[in-house]
Amino acid sequence: MKPLHALSLALCLAAGPALADALPSWNSGDAKARITDFVASVTDPASPDYVTPAARIATFDNDGTLWAEKPVYFQFLFAIDRLREMAAADSSVLSTDLLRAAAEGDMETVAAAGEEGLLEIVSTTHSGLSVEAFVAEARAWLQEARHPQSGMAYDAMIYQPMLELLRYLRDEDFKTYIVSGGGLHFVRAFSEEVYGIPPEQVIGSTGNASYAVIDGVPTVTKDPGIFFLDDKAGKPLAIEARIGRRPIFVGGNSDGDFEMLEWATAGEGPRFGLIVHHTDAEREFAYDRDSHVGRLGRGLDEAEARGWLLVDMARDWARVWPGE
Amino acid sequence: MKPLHALSLALCLAAGPALADALPSWNSGDAKARITDFVASVTDPASPDYVTPAARIATFDNDGTLWAEKPVYFQFLFAIDRLREMAAADSSVLSTDLLRAAAEGDMETVAAAGEEGLLEIVSTTHSGLSVEAFVAEARAWLQEARHPQSGMAYDAMIYQPMLELLRYLRDEDFKTYIVSGGGLHFVRAFSEEVYGIPPEQVIGSTGNASYAVIDGVPTVTKDPGIFFLDDKAGKPLAIEARIGRRPIFVGGNSDGDFEMLEWATAGEGPRFGLIVHHTDAEREFAYDRDSHVGRLGRGLDEAEARGWLLVDMARDWARVWPGE
Repeated sequence: MKPLHALSLALCLAAGPALADALPSWNSGDAKARITDFVASVTDPASPDYVTPAARIATFDNDGTLWAEKPVYFQFLFAIDRLREMAAADSSVLSTDLLRAAAEGDMETVAAAGEEGLLEIVSTTHSGLSVEAFVAEARAWLQEARHPQSGMAYDAMIYQPMLELLRYLRDEDFKTYIVSGGGLHFVRAFSEEVYGIPPEQVIGSTGNASYAVIDGVPTVTKDPGIFFLDDKAGKPLAIEARIGRRPIFVGGNSDGDFEMLEWATAGEGPRFGLIVHHTDAEREFAYDRDSHVGRLGRGLDEAEARGWLLVDMARDWARVWPGE
Repeated sequence: MKPLHALSLALCLAAGPALADALPSWNSGDAKARITDFVASVTDPASPDYVTPAARIATFDNDGTLWAEKPVYFQFLFAIDRLREMAAADSSVLSTDLLRAAAEGDMETVAAAGEEGLLEIVSTTHSGLSVEAFVAEARAWLQEARHPQSGMAYDAMIYQPMLELLRYLRDEDFKTYIVSGGGLHFVRAFSEEVYGIPPEQVIGSTGNASYAVIDGVPTVTKDPGIFFLDDKAGKPLAIEARIGRRPIFVGGNSDGDFEMLEWATAGEGPRFGLIVHHTDAEREFAYDRDSHVGRLGRGLDEAEARGWLLVDMARDWARVWPGE
């Protein structure tokens, strides 16, 4: 054996696990190579693109980026189920035509009410109880509820390639955050167990809240009304307020993530923007610019020019679900 | 040497640095012992009070807890200096009687305007520029401005015993946060350098903000108006929203910290509440229930019954400032 070969072998043996494929559910190709090349360049102290661990911030949208979002946002299905349960206990909760329509499953009326209608239903079903009680409700629902088409538990409809990406980034000393248009407490109900992302690294939309000592117990209560919508321009604002640094790695799937991608990738130094493009009608769903959830138009048009990676789910992912 | 002695010696040698005094600026006595006993009990895996590292959350107020706050909050002195600078460039900024009085140094009028007046001055001087530009302004001010009585730089008027406490907790795998009534971006301007607390672990009051692409540059701008006041009941609400876990160690100094202490120490398992009592007119300032800043009345009355440690600055601290 020549000395150089012996050295290579020794290095390979020493490096061992680091050389294992960190992204086994990503097909070999441009998408996977761009991700691993970027991570290699920012983590190699000898690279001109080296980034210190403290600045390795990665943020990901949730609905449509880390888990599925069809036929509608899963949190909305939780809200409808919870509305029915609340109405069964006390029908006076159905105080508007919209709430009555929602409880009856009249989704046409609900859809016609648009985002405002959605927020009314979420606000009604996500208030009047302590944060702890709400999180317990969300967890109980996730245990029992099943997706109308796949029959899977909702928190099993997460994307295996994205789980691997999260773990890979953390192994390379990135701090991974969720930045979701969905509700903060709803996402926290499963983020740690499912994604390995602790509560302090979840950013989401929030309702009003109040603090009071109730029957001797200091309690944070979820109140009606929306306090902050973590969507579109709200995402960079929330990241700035919560993290105080621009992420160097950002992942999204819809135009609701556009501003987050735009702001993060405009920062100095190396940046990586990623958009999950839902191209896989067979294994998941195929949709983009004409979808009522997860609409992707501008991001699709501008990704290439902006240097963002457009992940083609059908082409780039060897599998979709962890249970496959 | 008897076997047990040999073992003790070996353990001492092995433990080495851990046995060094982590809190050299705290006088020996009850306060110091209570802190170190608590930390020992929650970090010892064999203790019934053991807490996993992930749950070792510690939150501290800033003004009066980590740095001084007399004669008034330092951020307010920054706001006045900045108002004068803004007025020198464009006098139209002095659009109200209060702002004119503040720029002229008429502190009686300013004081008479109470909290609302203070917020008007802060809002005026903390808006109309990007977050980055604001932080640069705050840093430049901290470099140049000097305290009217001590002649010290403001960020030198930090409490050495509290710096040691922060470091000690971090060495014991606590995650240390600031939860300040002061402005998020003002505190971030020095928190990492001065306290070793990174931007994502600073919670503070926030003004309105907006996101826009300005001259091709994606920018987060500080706008007029208060978005969230991180004081009193706002503190537990902000901690819940930002961290999502109840701290097990909390430090404050005024009744603005009461709800944070109350909520945190009501959690299950071991909890530590600490109040810095300003008893030291010689080395710092002496004030509590009658002070217009850092008023401490209820906390003083209830600390003992609630099991919170009341730190007597004059008695418990061997030194106050790092530069001493």
